[in-house]
Amino acid sequence: MILYIIRKNADYSTLKEKLEASSATYKFIDLYGKRLVVGWPDSCLVGLQDPSIELIVNSRSPYVLSENNWKKEPTIVNVSGIEIGGEKVVVAAGPCSVESEEQIESVAKAIKSAGAKLLRGGTYKPRTSPYSFQGLGSEGIRILKKVGDSLGLPIVTEILDVRSLDVFKDVDMIQVGARNSQNFPLLRELGKFGKPVLLKRGMSTTVEEWMASADYILYEGNGNVVLCERGVRTFEKATRFTLDIGGMAAVKLLSHLPVCADPSHSAGKRELVQSLALAAIAAGADMLLIEVHPNPEKALSDSEQQLTPNSFSLLMERIKALANVLGRKV
Amino acid sequence: MILYIIRKNADYSTLKEKLEASSATYKFIDLYGKRLVVGWPDSCLVGLQDPSIELIVNSRSPYVLSENNWKKEPTIVNVSGIEIGGEKVVVAAGPCSVESEEQIESVAKAIKSAGAKLLRGGTYKPRTSPYSFQGLGSEGIRILKKVGDSLGLPIVTEILDVRSLDVFKDVDMIQVGARNSQNFPLLRELGKFGKPVLLKRGMSTTVEEWMASADYILYEGNGNVVLCERGVRTFEKATRFTLDIGGMAAVKLLSHLPVCADPSHSAGKRELVQSLALAAIAAGADMLLIEVHPNPEKALSDSEQQLTPNSFSLLMERIKALANVLGRKV
Amino acid sequence: MILYIIRKNADYSTLKEKLEASSATYKFIDLYGKRLVVGWPDSCLVGLQDPSIELIVNSRSPYVLSENNWKKEPTIVNVSGIEIGGEKVVVAAGPCSVESEEQIESVAKAIKSAGAKLLRGGTYKPRTSPYSFQGLGSEGIRILKKVGDSLGLPIVTEILDVRSLDVFKDVDMIQVGARNSQNFPLLRELGKFGKPVLLKRGMSTTVEEWMASADYILYEGNGNVVLCERGVRTFEKATRFTLDIGGMAAVKLLSHLPVCADPSHSAGKRELVQSLALAAIAAGADMLLIEVHPNPEKALSDSEQQLTPNSFSLLMERIKALANVLGRKV
Amino acid sequence: MILYIIRKNADYSTLKEKLEASSATYKFIDLYGKRLVVGWPDSCLVGLQDPSIELIVNSRSPYVLSENNWKKEPTIVNVSGIEIGGEKVVVAAGPCSVESEEQIESVAKAIKSAGAKLLRGGTYKPRTSPYSFQGLGSEGIRILKKVGDSLGLPIVTEILDVRSLDVFKDVDMIQVGARNSQNFPLLRELGKFGKPVLLKRGMSTTVEEWMASADYILYEGNGNVVLCERGVRTFEKATRFTLDIGGMAAVKLLSHLPVCADPSHSAGKRELVQSLALAAIAAGADMLLIEVHPNPEKALSDSEQQLTPNSFSLLMERIKALANVLGRKV
Repeated sequence: MILYIIRKNADYSTLKEKLEASSATYKFIDLYGKRLVVGWPDSCLVGLQDPSIELIVNSRSPYVLSENNWKKEPTIVNVSGIEIGGEKVVVAAGPCSVESEEQIESVAKAIKSAGAKLLRGGTYKPRTSPYSFQGLGSEGIRILKKVGDSLGLPIVTEILDVRSLDVFKDVDMIQVGARNSQNFPLLRELGKFGKPVLLKRGMSTTVEEWMASADYILYEGNGNVVLCERGVRTFEKATRFTLDIGGMAAVKLLSHLPVCADPSHSAGKRELVQSLALAAIAAGADMLLIEVHPNPEKALSDSEQQLTPNSFSLLMERIKALANVLGRKV
Repeated sequence: MILYIIRKNADYSTLKEKLEASSATYKFIDLYGKRLVVGWPDSCLVGLQDPSIELIVNSRSPYVLSENNWKKEPTIVNVSGIEIGGEKVVVAAGPCSVESEEQIESVAKAIKSAGAKLLRGGTYKPRTSPYSFQGLGSEGIRILKKVGDSLGLPIVTEILDVRSLDVFKDVDMIQVGARNSQNFPLLRELGKFGKPVLLKRGMSTTVEEWMASADYILYEGNGNVVLCERGVRTFEKATRFTLDIGGMAAVKLLSHLPVCADPSHSAGKRELVQSLALAAIAAGADMLLIEVHPNPEKALSDSEQQLTPNSFSLLMERIKALANVLGRKV
Repeated sequence: MILYIIRKNADYSTLKEKLEASSATYKFIDLYGKRLVVGWPDSCLVGLQDPSIELIVNSRSPYVLSENNWKKEPTIVNVSGIEIGGEKVVVAAGPCSVESEEQIESVAKAIKSAGAKLLRGGTYKPRTSPYSFQGLGSEGIRILKKVGDSLGLPIVTEILDVRSLDVFKDVDMIQVGARNSQNFPLLRELGKFGKPVLLKRGMSTTVEEWMASADYILYEGNGNVVLCERGVRTFEKATRFTLDIGGMAAVKLLSHLPVCADPSHSAGKRELVQSLALAAIAAGADMLLIEVHPNPEKALSDSEQQLTPNSFSLLMERIKALANVLGRKV
Repeated sequence: MILYIIRKNADYSTLKEKLEASSATYKFIDLYGKRLVVGWPDSCLVGLQDPSIELIVNSRSPYVLSENNWKKEPTIVNVSGIEIGGEKVVVAAGPCSVESEEQIESVAKAIKSAGAKLLRGGTYKPRTSPYSFQGLGSEGIRILKKVGDSLGLPIVTEILDVRSLDVFKDVDMIQVGARNSQNFPLLRELGKFGKPVLLKRGMSTTVEEWMASADYILYEGNGNVVLCERGVRTFEKATRFTLDIGGMAAVKLLSHLPVCADPSHSAGKRELVQSLALAAIAAGADMLLIEVHPNPEKALSDSEQQLTPNSFSLLMERIKALANVLGRKV
C-alpha cells in the first residue's frame, strides 16, 4: 500500500478528487498530529502526485503506519500521565488475577513504593480450560480503579470480549492478550475507542504480523499502542514460553512504537523473572509487565511465576541501576 | 474437574442439593441425549455419591466433555443432513473467498458433480493486514446460501466477530479460524447458538488446548463440533504451515469428536494439496476442507493454494478409491 | 553454483582447460551414468560454453545434484537387490536396538513373513544421555548380518562415528540419524564409501538443508541416497516429533531421490504408528522404517513406540491394500 | 543414575567390591579435585552404602555431572590463563572465518585493544552447502595461533571432524558447533582430550539435552566445559535464530558450568548484535562470542552479522558499563 503525508495546512481537495477518480481503496487518517492517506492497491495509484503531498511512502510489508519510515521520532504513549517510550523505563506490576480488594490494596502499595508506575491485574482471564478461574470481571475493574485512584496509579487490564468495551472506559491502558493478537474486529474497535493499548504478540505471531496487528489499531486513528513481547511458543519446556528478545529488538528497529516485555509469562517460574526482566531492559524495552502477588502460593492463577513484594522490590533496585547505565531512568 | 453422568430418568434432586451444599462450582449440561454435571475443584467434591449417578469421570486434563472416557462411541455431527464422523468421508470445497455469485455458482456445480457434500467459502476474512481484501461479509453469506440452496449443498463459512452471530443464522456450519481458536467469548456464544461448529486448531495450539477449546462449546450444550487440523507453525517454509497428521491422529485417540483436515492452507501451493489430502484420509480424517476456485490465478486471496475444478475432480477420484480401501465411502 | 552435463562420449578436454583458466572451483563427478561438472561461484563461470556440454543448470539453492532440474526420472536405489524408488513400497522393519541373536531371529522371521524387505536394528545408538544403553556396536552388526543372510534380508543400521566405517562394510544400507544429518565429514566419507545411504532429516533441518546434506554425498560420487523424514521438533508433545508429511511431499516435488518415512520415532507411541505409516504411503513415500520388537515392554530403548510382530503384520495388510489403490505394490 | 562422591583420602576398595558385585554399570571419574563414581541403573544400586561415600546424588535427569546438586560452587574454566565463570565477563571476538594472516592480525589487534580476551575465528566451517567456502583448515589454525601468541590472546576455533583432533593441540579452547551438539563420539573424544570446550547448544536441543551433552564430556574426566547459547530455530525470520535468553538463564540455575552467548549468529544482522549482547550479559552470561571482521562486506561467510572493529569497540564500552553495574568486570 501507499502512504501519503499531507503537508501541514495544505488544501488537499484535488488530491481527494484524484483518489476518488482512481479505483483504489483509500482512507484519511489523523495520527500524531499529521493528516495521512493510506491507499491500495499500488497499481491503482502509480504516478499519483499532488502539491498537498509532503511525503510518499510505499510499503511492501503488510503494515505501514506502525513502521518508522515516515515517522522517525519514537512515539511516546501517554497513559494518564505516565509516558511510555521516552527516557524513563516504565514498570507495570500487580497480580496475575485480581482476587479481592485487600489483595490489590496490599500489592498496589508495595509496587508503588518499589517504583512501579502502573498497576496491572487480570479481571477477564483468558483460560485454556472453561473449568479454571475466569476472573472477577467488571468487579475486578472496579477494584483496580478504586485502588489505583487512591494511590495515583493508572491501571492496565486485559480485554477479552469486544462486547465489553463499555466496562473499560475507566481503564487507563487496555491490554490485548496473546490469544487476541489477531482478533481483528477487537483491534479495530480499540482503534476507535482511542484508549492506550498494550498489544501483546501472539504466541506464534511473527514480527511482521505483530506490526500489521498494530496497523489495525492505528488505521482507526489511535496511535497509542505499545507492543509487548511475552514469549513465543517453541519446543523448549524449561521456560513456559521463549522470550524473543531478538524479535523485540527487531521491532525497535522497524517501528516508532514503544516496546514492552513480559518476563513473568515467559519465565513461568519466579527464579527466572529477574534475568529476563534485566535482559529486556538491556535490549531496549521501554516498559516491563511484572506479576507480583502478596502471597504467590495462594494465587488463583499462575502461582509459580508471581514475585513476592519483597523480591519485586529487589528487582526494581537492579532495574534502576541497569536503566541508569543505559542512559535511562525508572 | 469431575463429570457425573445422570442415570436415565433418575431423580437427581438430592444430587443437586449435595452439589449446592458443597463449595464447588458446577453446571448441568444436556449433551448427546444425556444429562451431565461438571463440577470443580475436585477437592470440594471428594466422596460425593448419589444413586442418580451412573458414572463418575475424573479428569486431570483441562477438558473432559470432548474426551472419550465417558462417551466411547464416536460422535456424528449432522450438518443439515450431511453426517460427519460416520462411515462416509465428507469433503467441503469452495473458494478461499466468496467473490461473486457467478464465481460461486460455477465452483459449486463443479465441486458437487465431483462429489463434495458441503460448499465452503470465506465471507469474513481474517487478514494479517488491514490493507488486504477483507471479504464480502453478509453479502457473501447471501450468495453462498442462495447457491447452496439451489444445489442442495449445506454451506460452511467462518465467523470473525462475536457480534455478527445473527448474520450466521442461515449458515449450516460455522467455522472458527485458527486465529480465534482460543477466542473464548466467541466459543461460548457458539455453544449457545447451537449450530455445528468447525473448530480449527490454532497455529500453535497444542492438542490439549484444542480439546479444551472444544469443551468451551460443549459446556454450553452444543455437541456438534468437528475438530479441524490446518497446520501448525514451525521453522519449515517449504509449506505454508506444517500439517500435523500425528496431532490429528492423537485427537482421534482421545476424543469422540470427528476430525477434519485442511490440506489447502497447510500446503500453501496446489502441487502439495493432493499428497496432504490423501495423507489425512489415510490417517483417519472424517472430513476434508479443500479450496477450489474457477480461476485460481485471479483469486482475491490465497491464489497459489486453490485447485482448479478439474484437478479437484481428479483428487476426488483418488480420495474415493482411498476411502474405499479403508472401509469408508465419500 | 552451475552444473554442466557432459554429452555422452564427448571430448571435454577444452572444457577442462576453460575451467582451469577460470578462477572457479570445480569438480568432475560421475553419477547415474553421466559425467557432470559442478563449479562455483557463478561469477567466474558466466558465459562459459563448450561443445561437450549437453545441458547447463544454474542453481540458486544450496544444492543442485539432488534436485530434479537436470534428472527428471526418479532415482531407484538398489539395496542388495531391493529397489527403493520404483513401483514397490519397501518396508524396513526391526527393533529399535539389537539386543541379542534370539531377539533378531525372532523378529526377522516375523517381519519377513509379513512382507518386510529389509531388516533394521540399532547397533550404535545415539543416546541423549551417556548413562543410557549405547547399543551392542560391531557385535550387533554381526548378529544383524548373520540373521539377515540366513533369511535373505538386506540390513540397515545407523552409523555414529566416521572412524567406524570399516565395521559397516557388511551393512547393506547405512543410516545417518537425525543428529548427524549435518555431520558433513561423515556425509563426505559416506559419499566416498559408496554404499546406499538412508539420510534422515535433522529434527530442525529445513527441506533445503536436507537436500544440501544429500548433495554432500552425491558430490563424492555416491548417488544411492534415500531421504528419510522422521519428524521435526515442534511445541506439540502429544507425539514425540511432528511427522512433516508436507515437507516429505515437498522433497518429492524437488528431488529425484526416493523418500522414506519413519512413523515410529515421530509417533512415540504405538497406537499412532499405523495412522502415520498409512499417511506417509498416501503422500508418496517410497519406503517406511518401522520398529518391531518381539516383546516391546522389555525393550532396552524406546519401548513405547515399537510394534509387536502381530500388530506389524496387521499394519502390513493395510499398507498393501493402500499401496495397491495408489498404483503401487509392497 | 546415581552419583557417589568419595570422601577425601578415603579407602574405597570395599565400595569398589560392592559395585563389582552389583550388576550395575559404573565408572570412577576424577573431576574438580574430587573422586566420583557414577552408576546405573538405579535398581541395581538401591541401598548401596559405604563409609567411603561422602554424598549420594540420585538424578532422574539424563545428566548428573553437569548439574549443581553435588557441586554448589560455580565452575571456573581456565583457558590458558583466562578465567571463565568468575567475576569477569570474558569476550571472545574475531571473524566468522579465518581468511588470511593480514585479516587476523588486523582484527586481533583491534579486538584486543577494545578489551576482548580471546581470539576466535572459524577454520573448519560447517556449511549447509558443499559449494560454500569451507574454511582454511589447519592453515587457519596456524594463523590464529601465530597471531594469538604474538598478542597474548588464547584462541578459540571449531572442530568438525573427530579425526582432526591432532590439529587442535595448539588450540586453547575447542568449540563444538550447534550441528555437532549431539555428536556423541566427538564429545567423548573431547572429554579424553582434556582441553577446554565451548559447547554450543543445538538449534533444537532442549536445555536438558544440552546438559546431557556436557555430561558426555565430563564423564570422560574433562570438567572444562562452557555452555554456549547461540539461538534456537523457530518460526520467526526477523532474526536468524531466536536467542533463548530464558534457556540460558535456566541452565545457570541448574548447572555449575559457566554459560556463554553468541549474539552474532542469532541476530543474523549487525544492527541487532548489541541488543542481544547486552541482554545476555544482563541475564548472567559469563562469556560472549562476537563476530568482528576488518571489512564485513567482503567477508567470505556471514558478512551481514559481523561487526566492524569500530562498532565492536563501542559495544565493548557498553558491555563494560553494564557488567560493572551488575557487580562484574570485563
